[in-house]
This record gives sequence, C-alpha cells and structure tokens, in this order.
Amino acid sequence: MVTRLSNFFLRTLREDPAGAEVASHKLLIRAGYIRPQAAGIFAWLPLGLRVKAKIETVVREEMAAAGAQEVHFPALMPREAYEATGRWEEYGDLLFRLQDRKGGDYLLAPTHEEAFTLLVKDLYSSYKDLPLTLYQIQDKYRDEARPRAGLLRGREFTMKDAYSFDASDEGLDASYQAQRDAYERIFQRLGLEYVIVQADAGAMGGSRSEEFLHPTPVGEDTFVRSEGGYAANVEAYTTTPPEAVGWDDVAAAAIYESPDTPTIETLVAHSNAVLDGEYTAADTLKNVVLALTHIDGTRELVIVGLPGDRDVDMKRAEVAFAPAEIEPATDADFEKHPLLVRGYIGPWSETGPVLGEESATGIRYLVDPRVADGTRWITGANIDQKHVHTVVAGRDFVADGTVEIANVREGDPAPDGSGPVWLAKGMEIGHVFQLGRKYAEALGLKVLNENGKLVTVTMGSYGIGVTRILAIIAELNNDDKGLIWPASVAPFDVHVVAAGRDQIAFDVAESIAVQLEAARLDVLYDDRVKVSPGVKFGDAELVGVPKIVIVGRGAAEGQVELWDRATGERDSVSVEDAIARLTAP
Amino acid sequence: MVTRLSNFFLRTLREDPAGAEVASHKLLIRAGYIRPQAAGIFAWLPLGLRVKAKIETVVREEMAAAGAQEVHFPALMPREAYEATGRWEEYGDLLFRLQDRKGGDYLLAPTHEEAFTLLVKDLYSSYKDLPLTLYQIQDKYRDEARPRAGLLRGREFTMKDAYSFDASDEGLDASYQAQRDAYERIFQRLGLEYVIVQADAGAMGGSRSEEFLHPTPVGEDTFVRSEGGYAANVEAYTTTPPEAVGWDDVAAAAIYESPDTPTIETLVAHSNAVLDGEYTAADTLKNVVLALTHIDGTRELVIVGLPGDRDVDMKRAEVAFAPAEIEPATDADFEKHPLLVRGYIGPWSETGPVLGEESATGIRYLVDPRVADGTRWITGANIDQKHVHTVVAGRDFVADGTVEIANVREGDPAPDGSGPVWLAKGMEIGHVFQLGRKYAEALGLKVLNENGKLVTVTMGSYGIGVTRILAIIAELNNDDKGLIWPASVAPFDVHVVAAGRDQIAFDVAESIAVQLEAARLDVLYDDRVKVSPGVKFGDAELVGVPKIVIVGRGAAEGQVELWDRATGERDSVSVEDAIARLTAP
Repeated sequence: MVTRLSNFFLRTLREDPAGAEVASHKLLIRAGYIRPQAAGIFAWLPLGLRVKAKIETVVREEMAAAGAQEVHFPALMPREAYEATGRWEEYGDLLFRLQDRKGGDYLLAPTHEEAFTLLVKDLYSSYKDLPLTLYQIQDKYRDEARPRAGLLRGREFTMKDAYSFDASDEGLDASYQAQRDAYERIFQRLGLEYVIVQADAGAMGGSRSEEFLHPTPVGEDTFVRSEGGYAANVEAYTTTPPEAVGWDDVAAAAIYESPDTPTIETLVAHSNAVLDGEYTAADTLKNVVLALTHIDGTRELVIVGLPGDRDVDMKRAEVAFAPAEIEPATDADFEKHPLLVRGYIGPWSETGPVLGEESATGIRYLVDPRVADGTRWITGANIDQKHVHTVVAGRDFVADGTVEIANVREGDPAPDGSGPVWLAKGMEIGHVFQLGRKYAEALGLKVLNENGKLVTVTMGSYGIGVTRILAIIAELNNDDKGLIWPASVAPFDVHVVAAGRDQIAFDVAESIAVQLEAARLDVLYDDRVKVSPGVKFGDAELVGVPKIVIVGRGAAEGQVELWDRATGERDSVSVEDAIARLTAP
Repeated sequence: MVTRLSNFFLRTLREDPAGAEVASHKLLIRAGYIRPQAAGIFAWLPLGLRVKAKIETVVREEMAAAGAQEVHFPALMPREAYEATGRWEEYGDLLFRLQDRKGGDYLLAPTHEEAFTLLVKDLYSSYKDLPLTLYQIQDKYRDEARPRAGLLRGREFTMKDAYSFDASDEGLDASYQAQRDAYERIFQRLGLEYVIVQADAGAMGGSRSEEFLHPTPVGEDTFVRSEGGYAANVEAYTTTPPEAVGWDDVAAAAIYESPDTPTIETLVAHSNAVLDGEYTAADTLKNVVLALTHIDGTRELVIVGLPGDRDVDMKRAEVAFAPAEIEPATDADFEKHPLLVRGYIGPWSETGPVLGEESATGIRYLVDPRVADGTRWITGANIDQKHVHTVVAGRDFVADGTVEIANVREGDPAPDGSGPVWLAKGMEIGHVFQLGRKYAEALGLKVLNENGKLVTVTMGSYGIGVTRILAIIAELNNDDKGLIWPASVAPFDVHVVAAGRDQIAFDVAESIAVQLEAARLDVLYDDRVKVSPGVKFGDAELVGVPKIVIVGRGAAEGQVELWDRATGERDSVSVEDAIARLTAP
C-alpha cells in the first residue's frame, strides 16, 4: 500500500528543537522520526518506527543465523535476583526502582543477565542442553544523570541483549565467536564501519571483552590503535612493564632539602640545580592520593605512584577501581591523615627513609607498572620541604600492587608488540563480553557434565543498542538539508514527489508510486495538493529517503527527474527508465 | 530454516505449575510458552513469542487496512499529563508509580490517552490534518490487587491501543466505525467468536462504548442479550421506566404500625395481615444506604430506593458511582446519622410523612427508574417500627435523581424493545470507545475549523489485549493432552516427529521438514535421538501444533502418518501425499 503524505502522520519542523546539540538529535525530531516525552525518553513516530524495524530485522536475521533464539522479558523485574548478584546496589542511581502495592521492590531492568541465568537454571540441567544462546530485543531503562544527545544517551533505549550458556570454557569461546561474527555481519549490512577494540571487563566481572566502535572524530570514546592491528579502549590499554633489574651497585637513597617544590616542574628544576645529573619529569615518582567510596559506603584512601611525566586518567582510574567510586582526596581527607605531607608525599611503606606503616594508616600504596623493581626515582620524603633521590623500587619500598591509571600517550608501545599506538575517537555500537561464571555462581546455575558431576555454567553477554545505532547512522549520514539514510535502513525506498500544478503530474506520480509498490518497494508519495514544490523538496531532503522521483512539468511528456539524495545528482529520464532503474536488483 | 527440537529452547513440564487454576495458565507454562517472573509478570519463551507475533501481525494488518498508523510510546511516562486529566489520582493503587534520581514523578502507563493527545496537539493544528487514527502495540502495566489466571489478568500485558482524532462528532462516528469494523475482521481471522455489547462509558468519561465479548460459560463478565439482537454489559443495561401517571384519585399516604418488620419478607407478611389488599415484594420500596468515598477522600452517604423484589448489583453500583468507591453504610455511618432508622428507612425528602431534610443531613436520595412519578409504594416511615403505605412518587417525595444499581433479571425488557433479555457469560476481547472531548479539553487539544475558529478535538480509544487474546485462544482450544492451536496463530504450521529407531526415519523426517519449509511453512522438527516416540507424541500433543507428521516404522516404505491434533485423526499416507496435503492452499 502506497503511503501518502496527505494523510501520513508527519509534521516536519523548521526550527531545531531547544536543547538539541548533536545532528541526529536535531534532525530526527525536525524530520518527524521521534518526539521527546521527558528527559532522555522519546516516542517513536511512524517514520522512526520504520527505520527501527529495519534495524531490528537485520539483527534478528543475523541472530538466527548465529543460532540464537529469541525470548522476551518484562522491563519490570523483582529485586531478588539483582540483589543476589549485587547489582541492585552496584547500579546506584542509574537504576529506576519502585515498589508495588504490597511494598515489594522492583526495578526497570538496565540489562537482564540475572533473568536469563535464572530462566536457564529453571529449565535446563544437563551439559547436553548446551550450548545455548538466547536473546531479546527489548526496551531498557537507565536513570542517566545527564541524558543527552537524544537517542545517543537516553534513559529509555531499545537493546538487543544476548546471553550464551556453556558447560566449558572452550564452549564459551565458540559461543562468543559466533556472536562476534554475527556482529561483524550486522554492522556490514548496516553500512557501519567498525573497529573491534579490547575493552575492560569492568564492573561486570569476567574475562574477554571487546567493543565494536565506529571510528569518528566526534566519538565520545577514546581508543588506542597501532599499525600492527592492536586496538583497545583507553581503559583497557595495558602498560608493558620494564624488566626488573638488580640494584647491587646502586648507592643508597638520600634525603635532600627541596624547599618550595610541591610540583613536578619545580622539583625537576631544583633537583637539577642541587644534584649531580640531568633529570626530567620522567625520573620523578609522583604520588597521588585518591579517595575511594566503596559500595558499602566506606571511604578508603589510596596512594598511587606513577612517573612524574604522566597524569592520572580519571576514566582509566574509574575502571581500575570499579565498582568503588573515586575522587581526588579532599582537604578533609588530608586533615584526617597528618602523615600525608601535601607536595612531598613519597612511597608509603615501612622501609628506608619513606615513612609510616600501612597498618598504621590503613592507606594502600599502589604503583604504575613502569615503577618496576630496580627502577630509580626522585620522590617525596614524606617530610615537608624534603625529597629523596636514588630511591629504588623493590629495595627502598615494596608497593602493595600495581594499577593502571596513568594516561596513555601517542607513541606508547602496544602491549602485543605491534608497534607504537596512537589515539583515536569512536562511538560504541556493540559489546561482546565473556561474563564467565560470575552470574551462574551467584544464582546457582549448574549442569551435570559428562561424568555426572555438577559444574557451574559459563556465560557470555552480547549487546547492541538498536536505538543508539539508529542515532549513530543518522549522525553519520546527513547534511545541512537533512538526513540521508543508507538504503538498508531507510524508512522508504523511494520518495515520489508530485511537483507540478496540473493533474497530469499527480496522475503520473500516482502511477509510478503504484508500480514501485507492486515491485515490492516501500514508497512514500507526496500527494499534497496545496503544498508548493519547494516545500515538498525541502521535506524530501529533510526526511532523507535515498531515492527521490520528481514528477513535474515534464510529466505530460512522460519525463521525470531521478534525484539521488546522497550525491544531489538529478537525472531527467523517462517514466519507464525511472521505474527500471529504481527496481533494478 | 527448520527449527529442530534437539536444540530448540524448550522444556515441557509434566506437572501443573503451583497456583495455576485455569487451563491456559497451566498449559502455556507446561508447554513452554511462558515462564512466571513475579506475580502477574511473565517472560516469553520462543514458542510463546511466535504465537504473540502472529496475533500482532493480524492486528497490524487490520489496523493498516483501517487507515491507522503505528507509533510507539515509552512505558515510563512523566506524571504531569496524567495529573491534568485526573488519572494520576483516579487509578489509585492500580498505578505503578516511581521517581527518578531528581525526584521527578513517573508512572508505568496503564494506557496512553494523555500521551497521544499531547502528541497530536504538539504537531497538528488544523481540521485539515484530521481525521487521524494512531495506534501502538506496547507493554502496559497495572498493579492488580490479585493478579490471577496467568495472562488473563496479569500486571504486565501487551496491548494494541488506538486513538482517533476528529474535528466533528460525525468524524468520530466514522473513525469509531472503522475501528469497530477492523475489530470484527481481527476476531474473525483469529477464529474468535464474539458478541458486541454496549458497555458503560464508566470512569473514562465519554459517550458510545462497546465491548467485544467472547461468549463462554466460563467468562468472568456477565452480559444480557435478547432474541432481537440487544446485547449489553450488565453494567450498561438501562431500565425502561414506566410512564408517569397521575395521582388525583389516590388516597393520602398513611403511616401504620409495623413492629419487627425490618426485612422485605416480614414487611410483606405483616402488611398483608393488617392492610387491605394483596401485596408482594414488588409493591414495597426498599431504601438502601451506601457510602461513597470520593477521590478527594471525602465520604458521602446516599440512600437509594428500589423495588423490594430487586437487590443491589454491586458491580452496577460501582459503575454508577465511579470514580467514587462504594460500600454499604457501616455501623459507624449509622451512628453518625441518628435520623437513619435501620429497617424503617423511607424516602428521604422534605415532604409528607417522610422525614428530615436533605439540607439537614447532606444525604442524597436517589431512586431506581422504576420508581416513576405516580407509582405507589409501601415503604419505611423513617420512624422505628413504622411503615407507610400509599406513598406516591412525585407526590409524597421527589427524589434527587435516578440511578441504575438494581440487579438485572432474566425476562427484564431490553431497552430497545427487542424483547426480554437473558443473562450470559463472556470474556472481554476488545473495547471500542468514544472518549469525546474529555482528554482534548483537559490537555487543550484544539484545531482550527473551516471557519478559522478553534474547536476542541473529539477522540476515540480502541483497545485489544494481545496477550489476553492469546490466553483466551489457549483457554478455548485445549484438551487433557495439551494445547490445540488454530492454524492462524499456531507457533508452527507442522510438527514433524521422527518416531522410528532407524536412521531411515530420521532421513525421511528431515527431508519432509526441509520440503515443507521450502513451501514456506513453519516447521518444528522433533529430531531428538534418545527420546522415545511416546515422549515425543506427548510433547507434540502438549505443544499443540495443529498438524503433526509421524515418521515411524513405515518410513522405509515411504509411508508416514498425518495426525490432526484437533480431531485426533491419524491417516497413513505416502510421503508425497503428506506433503501435498500439508502444502495445499
């Protein structure tokens, strides 16, 4: 059935909506695809639903090809299972929580790991039932603190979430690979360039984790790549530590006066003036005090030592210390710990000139992996106005562990030896993730193995944000006139515009629309009578159907124009040629 | 792609689930269509999703044929619009309410009248934009006090809700008729017998309102029908009042002693003993005191006078007084109003022997329509141990209005003159409803009419419970072995069972399954190797695919059995004949 604009539910808007900053947000509203209902919550209009349905069809087809089976969970879920896995607390304010009339606790699910785990536990009991991959396409909720950029970071969003269940690690690897391959096919079909980057397992707990990023300078995620093919989230980049070396011939550490040198810059200048040698920031060990707030509400201070030429990357630090929340230590923290001498903090252990004891303060001391055994440093003496030089890691202090919170720089080595890395920007379009046994353990999902023994199931989790992808496609495909949809997801295949004033233009346009529909194309026909051709063209450009047919003054002679929305090219052709070209496979 | 039971996510259960009472609830769980998540909240398994998708496809096709356009609203909606229409309060405990991290009030929408009204207000402004009918298929929430009967009354359910927008009453009538016609086609395609009954507009406020009921003795709704074609909800049945007659020749009302006659029965016996004449309960006027609790929390007493041979139908009373809640007056109510003499309450007005003044007590006096002007009654004298006879309505008292709360009986006249009615049971399967201008007025939806004047839009609301219909179809189509789906909504068209022990049975079954799929049928193939034929047959009967092909011992000779799940008939036929019969149009 031809869709006629004269009664299609669409009203294009000339003005950008208030508060919309990114192109997809502005254009999807202006072109009548979505309407805001509340911050980060949108209604879908007929045009938007059509694009969404096309993306979902691609996802469903590739899920089926990968052997995944579709199920559907409610958005409203009881608290219990999320309590058992700790996520009821961990999610913090991101979770929409509510109570029913009897006071029972519920949530609007941000993802459904728990529910899928319990469903499989409920019905399956043997390794013979596995492998199994289930998925759903479902509306999810997260109470983002600052919903923004329209569908790119909303509080409600449609997601395809899949979960795999295997009795063995090898099984998980195979299930993971099948989903990973399906994701590659999905993004290829949607025309979305992607880079697969290693991701940090983060708060979800688990092992292998990769994100599909669309590389674009306007992306909100930073990742690192090398010529040799390494690609990782900045949060997942791992530093290659130098080999440990001995310190037999190294002189003892020595404290020296260093008045007014609370910064690395002043310290280096002063040290070069008073010590033998030529030092740079990289020779100094900077000690940063961070405050962690754990899920149970307790506050813990941690000191992190890292080379003085590096800064703390707070996003890497957030991931490194998750699920605890972090912030720089506050004045109040320092007041509570008078042993912390601001500007002169040194390694925090019980040996040598460095002062205090962990047990005395409860403060852990962690270091960057570059602070390997045998490396020598200039660093704070934990005494006001004093530093210490020739401090040797492993000899003069032993850290409580290493941590990756130093910033990554262009030229740093890829951990796989594939050369120096550079930094790039991207947008996340998918995530595949080996959960391992965390959820199965928490919820008791076990099956009998070949030997009749109960083994805990190992799981994977695989997500694609359907509405997010729609927004990204819109973000990547537009110009100052409006949207330019790729054919695979366009709301219609062809937009026929009756642009003449005579009845003949409408008759010819109608006939073309009907013929194209008969050839199984989706046709939007602008049959509006009292609307000028200029307004119709403007609407066509804004709505962004890739192929436009203009039926205007040439209609009486059987001539029409084929207009390619992407290139802007217009060809004058006969009606027959237009239909032949549009219906060509 | 043939669906193979060896890796299909399905586990049939032998035991009925605890707490399940109705057949659809038991069987949909036992046969692996749904799994409970919380009271009245279910997950959909692959079999269930397939049936649901088929019903949704029928609904979508008929909505499109009726000119309705699909949109989609979020389940999570802000409070404001529901506040403006009063529904935030009116829905009471039925509403799931929650707050976001900023303390903003939200709800999980039970229906979306407000959202659709605002959407159209947002985008449209002229009568030329109308008529317009929009719909969505969406998951809705109601916090039922006693969720029961599985999907028949859940707390989450999938619903098709449509809303029409017109500039004139005639337009609304046409839009209403288009949806009503679409509903008839939908139920015909789904094989669901239906009766269209007049329904009370109830709490939604509005004018024309009809329900589609499936007539069945196990239905939870009672309706009345006549031979002449009248059909109405009991709540919507209207009493035909007798014509008013004069009272010129009627003697004056007279109070008489009636000790110990607090019931109609004792009153009639006593009256026949002491008065001239032969009275029945129908000659007495019973006065019932009800307590209304209004939305704002205030409590109001109302006295309702009705013929003594009728009882109060509390469901009719609920509808008559909605949105106030009602209950019989309590002892505490009577204590507060000493003028109410229990057992001897009479008409409550300021004239004649009946006592008190409305203004003095704040108690309204309403009567059944049968208490028409000129009718004569024996009734309470509002004095202990005393009644009054020859009380004439209109002469001795004037009620504050009429109200329909008396029970309806077999033999009562249909209000349209189509003969006496009888009572029948049914299940609601759809509802079409003229909202009128209530929502448009509350939310300010106006358009310019032909004369450039702003007119308030008039609306209709049209609902079909998709998951409820699925449950009803299951409820109507089963036997002691399991489900028996009608072909139009069956999860698969054909269930092929490899029932032999030899490889040849599997080879032949596989070949049949592939050929049927190639003919565009949906095939479930039971290819399980270590499962006995008996178990496979039991599963096939439980799952309820209408056509079953058994490939057993005859496979080597090219013979299979065609098994009709509904009739139980089994025909031994050749493989070729089986395929020909199953693929016949």
